[in-house]
Amino acid sequence: MKLDVVFTPTGLTAGEVQGRIVFVIDILRAGTTICAALHHGARAVVPVADTEEALRLVQTLGSEETLLAGERNCLPIPGFHLGNSPREMRPAVVRGKTIIMTTTNGTSALLATAAAGEVLLAGAANFTMAAERAREAWTTREDLLIICSGREHRFALDDAYTAGRLVEAALGGGRGRKGLSDAALVSLDLVRRYGRRWDRPLLLSRGGRDLSELGMTEDVMDAARVDAYPVRATFRDRRVVAT
Amino acid sequence: MKLDVVFTPTGLTAGEVQGRIVFVIDILRAGTTICAALHHGARAVVPVADTEEALRLVQTLGSEETLLAGERNCLPIPGFHLGNSPREMRPAVVRGKTIIMTTTNGTSALLATAAAGEVLLAGAANFTMAAERAREAWTTREDLLIICSGREHRFALDDAYTAGRLVEAALGGGRGRKGLSDAALVSLDLVRRYGRRWDRPLLLSRGGRDLSELGMTEDVMDAARVDAYPVRATFRDRRVVAT
Repeated sequence: MKLDVVFTPTGLTAGEVQGRIVFVIDILRAGTTICAALHHGARAVVPVADTEEALRLVQTLGSEETLLAGERNCLPIPGFHLGNSPREMRPAVVRGKTIIMTTTNGTSALLATAAAGEVLLAGAANFTMAAERAREAWTTREDLLIICSGREHRFALDDAYTAGRLVEAALGGGRGRKGLSDAALVSLDLVRRYGRRWDRPLLLSRGGRDLSELGMTEDVMDAARVDAYPVRATFRDRRVVAT
Repeated sequence: MKLDVVFTPTGLTAGEVQGRIVFVIDILRAGTTICAALHHGARAVVPVADTEEALRLVQTLGSEETLLAGERNCLPIPGFHLGNSPREMRPAVVRGKTIIMTTTNGTSALLATAAAGEVLLAGAANFTMAAERAREAWTTREDLLIICSGREHRFALDDAYTAGRLVEAALGGGRGRKGLSDAALVSLDLVRRYGRRWDRPLLLSRGGRDLSELGMTEDVMDAARVDAYPVRATFRDRRVVAT
């Protein structure tokens, strides 16, 4: 049984994902935004690679029940209904809708999981639910893989800290470190380093600082709220749904 | 001025390397082995991608002054003169020779640096020299990039800790963290976490544990010795030389 963390999805192979329980983390902001949308009644969120694919898909699915959401370099995409802020996903806006979403970093991690046994989104927003599943999987000796979306193919502190919280939850207080990759060990170290408050590593991370500079500190604080959008968000058949 | 660490060379672009002072780390073991070879009088070490290229190159350069070195999955390559152990690079063996070297993880990091302004190897083995150059570059406001070789395209604790030591040296006791990437911050955290003894993170890392299981703990301890092979190892014109 193995517990791996990867700090970016870059270079991930089908073999590394195959048959595993996979958690995908993109806490600033796509993962949090998807949880918010599902918690507030969206039917599904469909992550796509780029704007062109989003526009094609909205034609296939029909525009009545669909919303386009996403960002490029933290900013809304012209012509899209929604940006990538969890606070935009209000019940009155998203209930019953299918949301087609494209973001700078969040989408590729999800799309890298094609061969996985089960794929769940994890963040502070749905932490208790994700943590319970991680603990259960580790207890029943399944192989876990936690994929951080990272930032422009690079390590991101906000996702890595969140991975550490999930590793800690999977171990459930057990002190054995056998089966943990170096990255899993180090993400645990980050929890020790930054403590229990999620806002601290989030505000310190480059992603958090960039959002703050753009006047979106509230999005960072929203992403740091534990169990703010308590939904079990499963990625299957190319869409994220509440299960 | 920026100080970046990348935990693997995967996905690194020429633009990220362009014009920068680059340090390459592969402490277990290729980086250490190269420093040992140069310190003991090897003329140059030429890193190549695979066994086939090594065999081609030995034909070009002539077999008299050349030695083939390397490993695959920690073990020597059949027909090669040397493995990838720093302790094999004895003066009587390597003096005056050009060493053609291929290793599982070490080579790709070096080959990713083509566009850099200056490329130096860094490890415990030549730490003081590397640290002085890093400090000097940071003081004169140059952009630094530290590339960890990692392990099979993934994060490796041994390299990341070493990166942290180098970041710490570059900052020279200054407390400003401006210009540091998330990965640079976290590698500094690792120094705080694992302390000053290099053998601790090395023995704990997956790479160190694998070597120990293969009976090569002495190689790990050798790689942990500060200034064991104090050479300024520069990569230029596709070879590493003492400068």
